[in-house]
Amino acid sequence: MMKVFKVEEAKDWQGLLQRPATQQKNLQSIVQGIYQKVTANGDEALKSFTAEFDGVQIDSLRVSRAEINEAGKLLDNSLKKAIQVAAANIEKFHANQVNEEAKVTTMPGVYCWRKSIPIQKVGLYIPGGSAPLFSTVLMLGIPAKIAGSKKVVLCTPPNKEGKIHPAILFTAALCGIQHIYKVGGAQAIAAMVEGTDTIPAVQKIFGPGNSFVTEAKIQAQQKGVAIDMPAGPSEVLVIADENADASFVAADLLSQAEHGPDSQVILVTNNEETAKKVSIEVKKQLDALPRKEIAAQALENSKTFVVPSLYVALELSNDYAPEHLIINTLNADALAEEVEQAGSVFIGSWSCESAGDYASGTNHTLPTYGFASAYSGVSIDSFVKKVTYQKLSEEGIKNIGSTVEIMAEAEELFAHKNAVTLR
Amino acid sequence: MMKVFKVEEAKDWQGLLQRPATQQKNLQSIVQGIYQKVTANGDEALKSFTAEFDGVQIDSLRVSRAEINEAGKLLDNSLKKAIQVAAANIEKFHANQVNEEAKVTTMPGVYCWRKSIPIQKVGLYIPGGSAPLFSTVLMLGIPAKIAGSKKVVLCTPPNKEGKIHPAILFTAALCGIQHIYKVGGAQAIAAMVEGTDTIPAVQKIFGPGNSFVTEAKIQAQQKGVAIDMPAGPSEVLVIADENADASFVAADLLSQAEHGPDSQVILVTNNEETAKKVSIEVKKQLDALPRKEIAAQALENSKTFVVPSLYVALELSNDYAPEHLIINTLNADALAEEVEQAGSVFIGSWSCESAGDYASGTNHTLPTYGFASAYSGVSIDSFVKKVTYQKLSEEGIKNIGSTVEIMAEAEELFAHKNAVTLR
Repeated sequence: MMKVFKVEEAKDWQGLLQRPATQQKNLQSIVQGIYQKVTANGDEALKSFTAEFDGVQIDSLRVSRAEINEAGKLLDNSLKKAIQVAAANIEKFHANQVNEEAKVTTMPGVYCWRKSIPIQKVGLYIPGGSAPLFSTVLMLGIPAKIAGSKKVVLCTPPNKEGKIHPAILFTAALCGIQHIYKVGGAQAIAAMVEGTDTIPAVQKIFGPGNSFVTEAKIQAQQKGVAIDMPAGPSEVLVIADENADASFVAADLLSQAEHGPDSQVILVTNNEETAKKVSIEVKKQLDALPRKEIAAQALENSKTFVVPSLYVALELSNDYAPEHLIINTLNADALAEEVEQAGSVFIGSWSCESAGDYASGTNHTLPTYGFASAYSGVSIDSFVKKVTYQKLSEEGIKNIGSTVEIMAEAEELFAHKNAVTLR
Repeated sequence: MMKVFKVEEAKDWQGLLQRPATQQKNLQSIVQGIYQKVTANGDEALKSFTAEFDGVQIDSLRVSRAEINEAGKLLDNSLKKAIQVAAANIEKFHANQVNEEAKVTTMPGVYCWRKSIPIQKVGLYIPGGSAPLFSTVLMLGIPAKIAGSKKVVLCTPPNKEGKIHPAILFTAALCGIQHIYKVGGAQAIAAMVEGTDTIPAVQKIFGPGNSFVTEAKIQAQQKGVAIDMPAGPSEVLVIADENADASFVAADLLSQAEHGPDSQVILVTNNEETAKKVSIEVKKQLDALPRKEIAAQALENSKTFVVPSLYVALELSNDYAPEHLIINTLNADALAEEVEQAGSVFIGSWSCESAGDYASGTNHTLPTYGFASAYSGVSIDSFVKKVTYQKLSEEGIKNIGSTVEIMAEAEELFAHKNAVTLR
């Protein structure tokens, strides 16, 4: 079911790597309308949207302390343990990103440095739907905690009983998140942008979501609230050679395909036989999956490329800039050195995407849809501003003075010059 | 001319710190039209816009090697020397931002790390106008060089003779920039987004500009090309106590005011006498400035706040989140520790903004209009993606396996689980 293409150089694959256009149409005006109602009616608008879209009338938007405490009791110990193990790994990897830079003396008497300061108020959005995405709570909540954001707000839609899944509440509590609200969709984003009586306005919004949430985040950015990154369907590119176990490769492709019908799945191999074996394995494994229909739809748009060499495979991958890149080859380490554009890279046959999705420690909030060419995944950096400082001594201003004066004069900014001359 | 307000706590200053709304109106459709013409007619559209907006017919968009070589001969040695001194300081400060993170073993057999990879193709925009902004060439070109971007494209509008100011060409050459094009305005941004026969498409666009350029950058972002940060009028907030030399403070306020009539200038002091002295000094110095009228207009909207203490002054500054914060007080170091939101901080009486604008080493491309609450200024980080890697050994997948399986099952993603189980 995956179409196979033999390609040799960039011009052969360029057209084939085009991602499908995302359609928007009425989305923009619908979301604008939601913003207007949230701005005008605040909490009442949120409750009314929740009744309309989530099918439940809720009295209190904020999740109570009692509900959070109860969550721990409702979960299996094995799941709690798994979440804690994942949390520890994610914390370990992200804590390593905290970096204090040395002060620099650029000239005698001129001292410059940078300091990471947490973004004070951040909003995390966790989608609802069939399964509770508690793993995303970890991926956003842990860096927010390490960075030290003062106020961390989490919005997620309630189920038909007006409740939040206990795995989400348990994980949020584990991350020290106090402000949890039962509201989803574009209205949740609008609430975190505009602020309501109950929900505080934030300065940056993180997290995945459907097309309404994505559009609401784009509009948030236009209103001056930062967002983690632009969104797009999830994707994986697997590079495999003849040594790769076809069942592993098939499982990795399917674990991307099951995300949604618009998931992008690409296999690149230097071996035709491998392509065939993987295709057979994909069919076999697909049948056993509960999300079989979704995965099958995604596979309809997926592609297999047979290339002359693994370095050509990597060139193709660099052109595509995949969100996830799995390198399942004997020379995986060497190939990984050549990566120029990707969100997260999985090296060797034991490194499946699921490991990174949940528990290896890396972040699963990654740039997709080609944005890996210029954006990074979520990290501690996403939750801080790096503020620069400079301090000049009297000696410093003497040393730098004429340089500034000459440059300011050449740019015809005489008050700039004067600020130095006077000193 | 600066209005004086006595304030004591947040509620007193909240309304007063509102920045003026930026008007957009027809801008969006005008810029959309420019994009359409550039997409349809490429280089010819660029030449025709240059004839229309810059009043000059140019044959070749690309600046020739000969023009670049000539630039060095046209400049005063003193200016060349000043640019070189500034470049050395900026290079020293930014090179210090290059940081190789250690690999992390999150569990036995699970190795995770991050690597900074340069954004391959970047575009720098340098505005035209009365004065050549060669300092911005340094601020964007040096980090691009240190980061290692493969292709650095610079666009700047030609003057009436169809030439680029030699200071810009000299500085660009100093930064190793090869691709320099004579095109400005929204059409330059569109060219770097869409690509033309002459001008390569890029993945991220940097640099200041007028409202057309700003709108073109917003539209670039919607088309999937990243930008450095959202734009707004430049601003400074000065905190001064009774020890501050009023002439220094006045010079600092004026060097912001001369940028443009919409520049935001704020003085905060705990001493009424200081406010008066500065006001007198501002009037005195203003008269001597060539850009007097621009500065006077900016000062019309500027404000002086008299507060009960310096810590209240800093609280006000944190609420405002100024692009530039000058702390000209005896306890400047202690106050600087309390900064929560600012672009760049200037500590003590010798640290004037001009120093940072040109030569101290810090970057002058900074978040303004309140964006300092969630954005950082330009740095090496702006020119790289931080790609994550993970490598699991057979032991690693065994150690992490059950954690991933349990979590995947709880999120109802069985193919994710399967990718681990199979291994």
